[in-house]
Amino acid sequence: MNLNVERILIIGLGMIGASIALASRSKGIKVTGYDIDSNSVKNAFQNQIIDDEASSIEQINSKKYTKDIDLIILAIPPKQTLDVLNSLQEVWNTDTTITETSSVKNHIKIEGVSNIVLSHPIAGSDQSGLLAADENLFKNKKNVLCNPFNSDKDHYDKVENFWSNALQMKTALMTVSEHDLIFAMTSHLPHLISYALIDSIRLSNNDVGDNAGGGIKEFLRLSGSNPEMWRDIFMLNRVDLIKALAGMQVSLNNLLELITETKQIPDIFSHLEILKKELDEIKSYKEDKF
Amino acid sequence: MNLNVERILIIGLGMIGASIALASRSKGIKVTGYDIDSNSVKNAFQNQIIDDEASSIEQINSKKYTKDIDLIILAIPPKQTLDVLNSLQEVWNTDTTITETSSVKNHIKIEGVSNIVLSHPIAGSDQSGLLAADENLFKNKKNVLCNPFNSDKDHYDKVENFWSNALQMKTALMTVSEHDLIFAMTSHLPHLISYALIDSIRLSNNDVGDNAGGGIKEFLRLSGSNPEMWRDIFMLNRVDLIKALAGMQVSLNNLLELITETKQIPDIFSHLEILKKELDEIKSYKEDKF
Repeated sequence: MNLNVERILIIGLGMIGASIALASRSKGIKVTGYDIDSNSVKNAFQNQIIDDEASSIEQINSKKYTKDIDLIILAIPPKQTLDVLNSLQEVWNTDTTITETSSVKNHIKIEGVSNIVLSHPIAGSDQSGLLAADENLFKNKKNVLCNPFNSDKDHYDKVENFWSNALQMKTALMTVSEHDLIFAMTSHLPHLISYALIDSIRLSNNDVGDNAGGGIKEFLRLSGSNPEMWRDIFMLNRVDLIKALAGMQVSLNNLLELITETKQIPDIFSHLEILKKELDEIKSYKEDKF
Repeated sequence: MNLNVERILIIGLGMIGASIALASRSKGIKVTGYDIDSNSVKNAFQNQIIDDEASSIEQINSKKYTKDIDLIILAIPPKQTLDVLNSLQEVWNTDTTITETSSVKNHIKIEGVSNIVLSHPIAGSDQSGLLAADENLFKNKKNVLCNPFNSDKDHYDKVENFWSNALQMKTALMTVSEHDLIFAMTSHLPHLISYALIDSIRLSNNDVGDNAGGGIKEFLRLSGSNPEMWRDIFMLNRVDLIKALAGMQVSLNNLLELITETKQIPDIFSHLEILKKELDEIKSYKEDKF
């Protein structure tokens, strides 16, 4: 099996898929593209984002069709990812490697397969769609790989090589549980909280608009993300999302107990001192670790 | 009384005070500066951020000293703002107008004064200190004025004129309660939540670091703000902060009930549909109002 990727097939030509296509073509990799929206495929071909087109999942689901394809990459929303992986059973356990890019992994449960490796290239933007494609979107970014099906080393290495060499990403390996909890804490919860905060301002009937203070801007950006994709992420990762929320509530309650001076503290300290110390420690942790 | 401001005195030469100084000088306004840190005053003078120096609050607290000063602007943290206003009693009820820039207002309680007007220029950055000063920091930004002491119209107009004409800001008038609740919702709560989220990641002992997902970046910026100032803001505005948090929890619980499918909904709908609808509505509200 050729561990160097020479020809790939990308399923899903939104911002992520099209950016992978551009970066791959810039390294001389041949790219076939497919999207459920045939206009996207046409546009991608006309804009030289892909070299040629596949016409359906049925066409792709064939050993003969995929014989010369080294790597199939799914760049579609989390729920559809599982459906499409299940629709490619003819390609399971062949020399063609399959990977995907979903930001939740625990629902991807498949048995008896040894050529599927999961990937999560950590990059994105406010924008979506083919026209937002950017050849350098992934350059020097992180990509978290998971190998829950214990796929063969050659398949794993091929995926790892592709992201590190062709897309110049830094890869890390995690278990699915590590991945989903970490992304619940660092991405899914921030998005959920942002939706909740904006909703509470809406329900308060206060005319906030352009009198809003510094801080809301960040939450506004997050709450503007694609509602359909985020609904699915919240649902699919709800167990870890609630774990992450429970953790945040503990920290929030601790800060609130200091702010309201209801926390029991030693006489030699004041609530103000301890609150300042806590905020300092959080700031230092942030500066050390991120 | 001259409603056009020709000479101002700025107390506090951090990023905010020094930026006001630069913008004022660019409009030909003479600027005297004072800071508790005498090095800041020296640096501001040497860097031509101010025209001349005051040496102490005691010196400033004199009718004679402030006779030619049209406007005194405090650009210091919220708690010190009240202390310094109280230390300027010789200047109370003179032709010199006094304003300040604190992001909380409810603690500023003074009786028998008619020349103090409160301001909140909404601008800032990650940076702090004299060297982060920026002549254009406030240009075209909002400035929320409060007049809780019913100060004389001339004093109010002078402050309003200064911000609109000299600093080219858009002004709005609010009551102190409106101001503090709106800023609790749009600024103080986002900061508190960001500190809590980063703290919960710290306590989880997960090695998140550079494997963090999209979303955390926004929270990281907020939790890096000055801990001493934020401790004071949280404490001083704790009643409205908790009101804002209660509102957010209602919205969060509603989303969680949909995500966990525990909410009672009519048979003809699914939790998925209703969750999508809620997220869509939040996104549209955001796009309409902000």
